[in-house]
Amino acid sequence: MQNLDTGLAPVAVLGLGLMGRALAEAFLRAGHPTTVWNRTAAKAEPLVAQGAKLAGSPADAAAAAPLVIVCVADHDAVRELLDSLGDVLDGRVLVNLTSGTSLTARETAERVERKGGAYLDGAILAAPQGIGADAAILYSGPRSAFDPHEPTLRVLGAGTTYLGDDHALSSLYDVAVLGLMWGILNGFLQGAALLGAAGVKATAFTPVATTGIATVADWVAGYAQQIDDGTYPAPDATIGTHLTAMEHLVHESESLGVSTEFPRLVKALAERAVADGRGGDGYAAMIEQFRTPAAGARA
Amino acid sequence: MQNLDTGLAPVAVLGLGLMGRALAEAFLRAGHPTTVWNRTAAKAEPLVAQGAKLAGSPADAAAAAPLVIVCVADHDAVRELLDSLGDVLDGRVLVNLTSGTSLTARETAERVERKGGAYLDGAILAAPQGIGADAAILYSGPRSAFDPHEPTLRVLGAGTTYLGDDHALSSLYDVAVLGLMWGILNGFLQGAALLGAAGVKATAFTPVATTGIATVADWVAGYAQQIDDGTYPAPDATIGTHLTAMEHLVHESESLGVSTEFPRLVKALAERAVADGRGGDGYAAMIEQFRTPAAGARA
Ligand SMILES: NC(=O)c1ccc[n+]([C@@H]2O[C@H](COP(=O)([O-])OP(=O)(O)OC[C@H]3O[C@@H](n4cnc5c(N)ncnc54)[C@H](OP(=O)(O)O)[C@@H]3O)[C@@H](O)[C@H]2O)c1
Ligand SMILES: NC(=O)c1ccc[n+]([C@@H]2O[C@H](COP(=O)([O-])OP(=O)(O)OC[C@H]3O[C@@H](n4cnc5c(N)ncnc54)[C@H](OP(=O)(O)O)[C@@H]3O)[C@@H](O)[C@H]2O)c1
Repeated sequence: MQNLDTGLAPVAVLGLGLMGRALAEAFLRAGHPTTVWNRTAAKAEPLVAQGAKLAGSPADAAAAAPLVIVCVADHDAVRELLDSLGDVLDGRVLVNLTSGTSLTARETAERVERKGGAYLDGAILAAPQGIGADAAILYSGPRSAFDPHEPTLRVLGAGTTYLGDDHALSSLYDVAVLGLMWGILNGFLQGAALLGAAGVKATAFTPVATTGIATVADWVAGYAQQIDDGTYPAPDATIGTHLTAMEHLVHESESLGVSTEFPRLVKALAERAVADGRGGDGYAAMIEQFRTPAAGARA
Repeated sequence: MQNLDTGLAPVAVLGLGLMGRALAEAFLRAGHPTTVWNRTAAKAEPLVAQGAKLAGSPADAAAAAPLVIVCVADHDAVRELLDSLGDVLDGRVLVNLTSGTSLTARETAERVERKGGAYLDGAILAAPQGIGADAAILYSGPRSAFDPHEPTLRVLGAGTTYLGDDHALSSLYDVAVLGLMWGILNGFLQGAALLGAAGVKATAFTPVATTGIATVADWVAGYAQQIDDGTYPAPDATIGTHLTAMEHLVHESESLGVSTEFPRLVKALAERAVADGRGGDGYAAMIEQFRTPAAGARA
């Protein structure tokens, strides 16, 4: 299956939306013989102009390469696409970069394996502009499927990471990182709203916020180690100290008339940790509040 | 008031807890003649060994320098301390680095000004180890009080920042950055809890989380500009797209049996933005949800 022109492994890309197109372009730029397919064929034109081969059906595209990449709108589209492939996947590796859940990852794995293919579930933690550059892309599934294709997959992003055998891992990491992203963005928006109510522009908050993010980013590795060790020393600030400052955040938000939902949740979680006897521990001890659904909270 | 030995301006530091001691040490290391006072005098000993002058009373300490730094446990301690100063503040600048709220900043300003002093309220966004190094320290109050002492204050941290005349600003920025900090930490803990329930160690999450934080940090300046402009284009992902992924976070958290409070709040805020017609906008349009207390939410 080597291509005589470039010596690089051929690839097939199914789905040429914003993301699929970026994937195909990265392969083409790197010199991989690239066969593409899209439901709406016209979207393939710019790629064909860059050297891609347009296949007439998903099965024809998949037949052209040992490595088949799927990136479509959602899980329903993935299922439809797979059902149309017949037994062409036999002996090939299918990599699905469509966003999904651990449940859909397991379902798709079963479907692909039933057809004799090997399955890697993937999650792209980047915008299309990051593809072919510094994009972080996570993969999970059999190592025997990942290893031979790693050099090819690495073309898509310098942050190519193999997580392990369990197909569910990439979507779990995906939502975990997204949750972190929303935490950052919502924290920033709360601060911007608070300062905005006092007449401060969001752009004036930016430098202080950016410094703050960089500072906290440096703590994460240490807190993660504490969580794995199950010990939460507080050389910096205790949860009790945090709680006092959280009360300030609630009061300032109240008196400036902005939303207090985010501050109240932050404070409620810390109050519960203090009630659990964790007031003298470092912030990482808060992990217990996230591990366990609160009594009385909706399941 | 120049010291003949070093040529550097003398300073007084009142309060020698973990933070006050770090402040005094930074001044001593930089060669500033430093007079100190602490309620429990014994805590001054290591500083005296480094060249500090120990004053017998807060008023004696304040009398020794044009710039008087206070850093004690809380606002009540600040009030007590100020009441004991008599009229020694007349013509001096008092800088209060005790954490507080915009309300306590205004109260303290009034108290100091009544005694003929000029007042700067400050907020330290760093641990004691950052003092004399890269600490971010925010100041607000009259520029005429800040400017002449800026070189001296900069000794305490490279991130010395003057915010403006309004004494409330430093405590508002302080809680705004703290809110951002809790957003990051809680987002990380939610992800660590989720992955932990699937058997993944928190330290395995760290590299992906750290990359994620750095990525999002780069978006903040652009989002701040959108907020100030009041327009929310979405070249990357719309709030509607985010909402789909938020549902994944809620479901994964539910099915792994971890807390869903943080995911549910994240999702509820985005649902409200979609209901307000913001589903096609970029994430910065979520600012509106933070500006306005939710209908029915506790005031
Ligand atoms: N864009 C990003 O920033 C980004 C980032 C990370 C992850 N992702 C994920 O990447 C995936 C694709 O996103 P995108 O931005 O490329 O979306 P998009 O621009 O909306 O493209 C959707 C693609 O799916 C195809 N499609 C939809 N229904 C189909 C069906 N029933 N059968 C076959 N093909 C179907 C579309 O074909 P037509 O052209 O015929 O409509 C199109 O190629 C999504 O899961 C998304 O969550 C995107
Ligand atoms: N430590 C940090 O990482 C950090 C970071 C940012 C901001 N801050 C802020 O800095 C301030 C001081 O923190 P810290 O860490 O230094 O606290 P600390 O180690 O607990 O020290 C508290 C200081 O306040 C003094 N004090 C308490 N009540 C007093 C009173 N009624 N009259 C006079 N002095 C009194 C104590 O004197 P005695 O020695 O006699 O008890 C001691 O010097 C707090 O507002 C804190 O929020 C601290």
